Amino acid sequence: MAGNTIGEAFKITTWGESHGDTVGVVIDGCPPGLEITRQDIQKELNRRRPGQGELTTSREEGDRVRIMSGVFEGKTLGTPIAMMVKNKDSRREDYEDFKDIYRPSHADFTYEKKYGRRNWMGGGRASARETLARVAAGAVARKYLSKNFNLEIVSWVQQVHDICASQINVDEITAGDVEDNSVRCPDYKAAQKMEKRIKDAKKEGDSLGGVIKLIARNCPAGWGEPVFDKLDALLAHHLMSIPAVKGVQIGSGFAAARMKGSEHNDSFIREDGEIKTTTNRSGGIQGGISNGMPVIAEVAFKPVPTINKPQETLNSKGKKVTMAAKGRHDPCVLPRAVPIVEASCALVLADLALRQQAIKNYHK
Amino acid sequence: MAGNTIGEAFKITTWGESHGDTVGVVIDGCPPGLEITRQDIQKELNRRRPGQGELTTSREEGDRVRIMSGVFEGKTLGTPIAMMVKNKDSRREDYEDFKDIYRPSHADFTYEKKYGRRNWMGGGRASARETLARVAAGAVARKYLSKNFNLEIVSWVQQVHDICASQINVDEITAGDVEDNSVRCPDYKAAQKMEKRIKDAKKEGDSLGGVIKLIARNCPAGWGEPVFDKLDALLAHHLMSIPAVKGVQIGSGFAAARMKGSEHNDSFIREDGEIKTTTNRSGGIQGGISNGMPVIAEVAFKPVPTINKPQETLNSKGKKVTMAAKGRHDPCVLPRAVPIVEASCALVLADLALRQQAIKNYHK
Amino acid sequence: MAGNTIGEAFKITTWGESHGDTVGVVIDGCPPGLEITRQDIQKELNRRRPGQGELTTSREEGDRVRIMSGVFEGKTLGTPIAMMVKNKDSRREDYEDFKDIYRPSHADFTYEKKYGRRNWMGGGRASARETLARVAAGAVARKYLSKNFNLEIVSWVQQVHDICASQINVDEITAGDVEDNSVRCPDYKAAQKMEKRIKDAKKEGDSLGGVIKLIARNCPAGWGEPVFDKLDALLAHHLMSIPAVKGVQIGSGFAAARMKGSEHNDSFIREDGEIKTTTNRSGGIQGGISNGMPVIAEVAFKPVPTINKPQETLNSKGKKVTMAAKGRHDPCVLPRAVPIVEASCALVLADLALRQQAIKNYHK
Amino acid sequence: MAGNTIGEAFKITTWGESHGDTVGVVIDGCPPGLEITRQDIQKELNRRRPGQGELTTSREEGDRVRIMSGVFEGKTLGTPIAMMVKNKDSRREDYEDFKDIYRPSHADFTYEKKYGRRNWMGGGRASARETLARVAAGAVARKYLSKNFNLEIVSWVQQVHDICASQINVDEITAGDVEDNSVRCPDYKAAQKMEKRIKDAKKEGDSLGGVIKLIARNCPAGWGEPVFDKLDALLAHHLMSIPAVKGVQIGSGFAAARMKGSEHNDSFIREDGEIKTTTNRSGGIQGGISNGMPVIAEVAFKPVPTINKPQETLNSKGKKVTMAAKGRHDPCVLPRAVPIVEASCALVLADLALRQQAIKNYHK
Repeated sequence: MAGNTIGEAFKITTWGESHGDTVGVVIDGCPPGLEITRQDIQKELNRRRPGQGELTTSREEGDRVRIMSGVFEGKTLGTPIAMMVKNKDSRREDYEDFKDIYRPSHADFTYEKKYGRRNWMGGGRASARETLARVAAGAVARKYLSKNFNLEIVSWVQQVHDICASQINVDEITAGDVEDNSVRCPDYKAAQKMEKRIKDAKKEGDSLGGVIKLIARNCPAGWGEPVFDKLDALLAHHLMSIPAVKGVQIGSGFAAARMKGSEHNDSFIREDGEIKTTTNRSGGIQGGISNGMPVIAEVAFKPVPTINKPQETLNSKGKKVTMAAKGRHDPCVLPRAVPIVEASCALVLADLALRQQAIKNYHK
Repeated sequence: MAGNTIGEAFKITTWGESHGDTVGVVIDGCPPGLEITRQDIQKELNRRRPGQGELTTSREEGDRVRIMSGVFEGKTLGTPIAMMVKNKDSRREDYEDFKDIYRPSHADFTYEKKYGRRNWMGGGRASARETLARVAAGAVARKYLSKNFNLEIVSWVQQVHDICASQINVDEITAGDVEDNSVRCPDYKAAQKMEKRIKDAKKEGDSLGGVIKLIARNCPAGWGEPVFDKLDALLAHHLMSIPAVKGVQIGSGFAAARMKGSEHNDSFIREDGEIKTTTNRSGGIQGGISNGMPVIAEVAFKPVPTINKPQETLNSKGKKVTMAAKGRHDPCVLPRAVPIVEASCALVLADLALRQQAIKNYHK
Repeated sequence: MAGNTIGEAFKITTWGESHGDTVGVVIDGCPPGLEITRQDIQKELNRRRPGQGELTTSREEGDRVRIMSGVFEGKTLGTPIAMMVKNKDSRREDYEDFKDIYRPSHADFTYEKKYGRRNWMGGGRASARETLARVAAGAVARKYLSKNFNLEIVSWVQQVHDICASQINVDEITAGDVEDNSVRCPDYKAAQKMEKRIKDAKKEGDSLGGVIKLIARNCPAGWGEPVFDKLDALLAHHLMSIPAVKGVQIGSGFAAARMKGSEHNDSFIREDGEIKTTTNRSGGIQGGISNGMPVIAEVAFKPVPTINKPQETLNSKGKKVTMAAKGRHDPCVLPRAVPIVEASCALVLADLALRQQAIKNYHK
Repeated sequence: MAGNTIGEAFKITTWGESHGDTVGVVIDGCPPGLEITRQDIQKELNRRRPGQGELTTSREEGDRVRIMSGVFEGKTLGTPIAMMVKNKDSRREDYEDFKDIYRPSHADFTYEKKYGRRNWMGGGRASARETLARVAAGAVARKYLSKNFNLEIVSWVQQVHDICASQINVDEITAGDVEDNSVRCPDYKAAQKMEKRIKDAKKEGDSLGGVIKLIARNCPAGWGEPVFDKLDALLAHHLMSIPAVKGVQIGSGFAAARMKGSEHNDSFIREDGEIKTTTNRSGGIQGGISNGMPVIAEVAFKPVPTINKPQETLNSKGKKVTMAAKGRHDPCVLPRAVPIVEASCALVLADLALRQQAIKNYHK
């Protein structure tokens, strides 16, 4: 009802305001016997962390995860896995100036309308800090998928502002390729331009949008639940719930709108004894169910609303005010959002894997 | 778990294969005392029905809805509202030829991988016939929203193939404008071109994709549940679960990726005593919660995979075959999908309205 | 939220007022490939039907089930199984006298307080007619459990008023034994006394309570989900939701309150290579999880509130009135409640079987 | 699916093995603006804590709760409230002897059958330590109910072994009366006998069962959701999920089985302008919905299985062994279970209050 739980078989519940005591997550439904270490989780959190390079905010969060239950002698027990990260002490004075201001395109106004009050020390639950919980849970989902299905999830920055990557071989790109530069774009020429564009935006006190592309390989055919919990529908739900996301497309996406059926249809063929499709405009999903081809999606992020340029807006009394964000902010969240997008995909797939597992022995 | 239920407070569960006995829906959670007639439902089903004009398939389905519970003396009781539509008798011989064929970009292959078997007489649950149940439930949601909040949902065909509507005033367009032509595009010049393009595709035995645009007006601020059941995330989930949908965007959508924060941010202003925003790139949603501005979304549909042109594919033994759909098929589902998109929006908003209602008296 | 759905993996949603158009159920999550016929369902409905003998009400309901989806060529598809039974036309005049009366210990008053209105033609959703939907769904669950696990569920009338069965060998009793007499008590001497007591109550225009006992054999060890969806907790939930139930106990039940640990503990032993317990005070459940021993429960029913004796009560204007039920009513629902109790047990076990199936391959 | 979440509108998710790092809970759905302090929670945890007196185990757990989110400046935000208690360091050697033993009537065997492994250092999730999370969440639910409805929940020890309280005026008993003696039985003569009986059991190295009785006053009419989430059904679910509970009864309970309708029915009367019933055999619930009278339930606890007397059982290799628990154990958990029973009741009622709130303005 209140929206802090997602998933059915691999279910997660998250908590934590950006400047509250902790941010955390409970995973319920992770199968027993999976090897998991604190480092498996920490590694993903580090990829999401600000302050990894010059391109992101220089606030050092140092998010050290603590596993609070569900793992015993290095393996999951089948019981809930709770994890948390302590927040740094917030300085009240950093936020007091904005306490009564509805920052443009932030959630200050909507939270007040919804709840009658809000934690004005930062963005509360609307802050991207919340995604830390998803990334921690996603790391467990990922390990489960990798170990049991050899399933592999890779995503990268495909576009920043109007610079689009063009030299990427989707079928061969690896996680290592993505980590090779700080903008997480494996088309190195595009990456250099993106870096420059981000630095320029930083100087201007402005921010930039972009697109992240996602691929999941070795996803078995048969995952996804008709008619509402289709694989594409759950991906759309999960990805659209990431802060700043404004669009999601699967396979051919919006480009499909301009196509004819004879151009768009993926024909089945047999290759090495396996049934595949010649093309993959379906993005690995037909009728909401995986068909064994790579699952492919793209996610559009708006430019983050926090900018240092002065803006006009209202305060909570309805009076006009001019404001400018202080301090250092991420001019472009795309590089840090890569592990968040991957975590979302892992969470959806782990959930659907278990749901399919529940019925699959009865196919007779 | 098995994915045929969606919503929490205004929850629907649907059933029915395209050529089974019936297709139906149970609504659980509709508040008591709402006036509802069979005609309220039938009206929306008629908009979705094939055979409305030359542009859609000429199969006459004549879907007459039956209300099986939950309404007494013209008003809802608060108990489950079950509704169903009887399927026409299917002729086994119409489908026998395709019984063992994996039609390209259909769900035949994935259903078999998932369940080990399928109802090969038509598309089963993957058929667009399933959406009839959503439209019936959406009609109830819509009435509830209209009566209690004066909330208004309008959607229309924005694009067919490469023809885009350009003369539409989003703020003023009405349901009547949309119904004025058979392609449901209220830019009349574009509509004429779309009609011609659809007829041409029909002649070619091909199909066309397109885009539907959606607006919901008078949505109160405060609807949407952080962090997973954000209004935009639920919309994306619901819309992406409609057959043939490949992309969903909210407000600025993918265009946001090319923008700077200073261009994208919506400033708050006061107008007639109310807080509004000068622009609406947020699409009426900030931090996943409605802000009182119109909710705006766009949905991309692929060209439907059923085409009369011959195509190569495999049968279930893995042997190559050439097939061509027989009979008359919708070359472009967009006009008929308009009420489906509206129903999805109504179902999401009714659900979030009740969820907000559960907590809103406690803001003190 | 509105409570007409239960179960997670084997989930059911029911609809229907006692004198509305139909009563029905959707099962979501039944695995594909299970053989199921209309007769499998009808057989259980017939056991629940009134008018089976002299002991129950002589209204003939003739509840003929219709399978509306999810079964194709004699087997389940994995898609939702919807079933319904048409209600007989109700005669408005039969109920008009009680339209404004709060019948003692009925739900007339509470439904009005909850919903502001109610279907006064009969008991609406509070009527035992609703249980028809559970019994239909339970028949499918039962078939699934029987076919896949050889699991067997038997229940019987253990007590009517102050007459208790004493000559029943719980380990050996069969479904056939139970069906052997119209009171469904396999202790034949007790059964004769019960029959007489029920006939006497009928003559007096009164009603009688009683107890039903339940056993499930061949339930594999490992079913039940800590900590809230324990097997015993789900059984208690399901059984307590049956109209007129006032108490549920598992294994030793309330008698355990008077025992010492040294008397109550069930010791593990090895028998024919299998681990069993010497006694079964746990009722087959330890820590909320089945241990492989028979699952045993007892359910207390109050005497139904509809009696022909005159009673004082209030009408909806708060005025005192004297009323007496007209027509013929079941003086004791216990015999007809036997299939309802069994259905509840089957629904709980099928749900937990699938939930366990989702994780059980990962025990390594 | 995995059973660690309960409730829909006021939903809780718990985590933690008895000897893991922490035990905790997330509440999702608590309305905003509720005043809550750490002390509100701690007070209830202290009542549940062992080592309160001579009658309970003398292990000092000192469970200090930490509120990790959802409360800001003394009031709830409407966002998830996460709370945790750190476990004391467990000494591996305390448990190593029992590592491979299936303790009689414990969950060692069933957890291994379910998950293939278990945390053998204590009872894991089957330990009563898990109830700490429910009590913490229940304290918040209780405060919400008390502040908004003046609702009052009291429970007490009604029976220990064969000693039953008889001098209790259910209508007038207060929380203070219950706390007046260490056995939490407000019939002081019975309490003295119970105390002696418990001390004797301790000396014998044995344990005792008993019964707790529960009353909730000022529960508004209209709470409870037909047909599966009836107030009595949810109470039964919640209470039966408490470790060691074997039976639950509502109002007249099992005694109803011996009654006639004419004896059992509660007649409606008008008193001080309000509609009440002359008797309350319904336990405040009719048709699964509260009727405004006190909600009354009883819960049977088995004697805890941990006893110092030697017992025969098997180890995980199937070999016979004789074992005796070491150290000090609670011979009777009833006094400590009183706050657990109250918390369960509070959680059920808060959930149903919000669910009713979602629809109640529409009764027109």
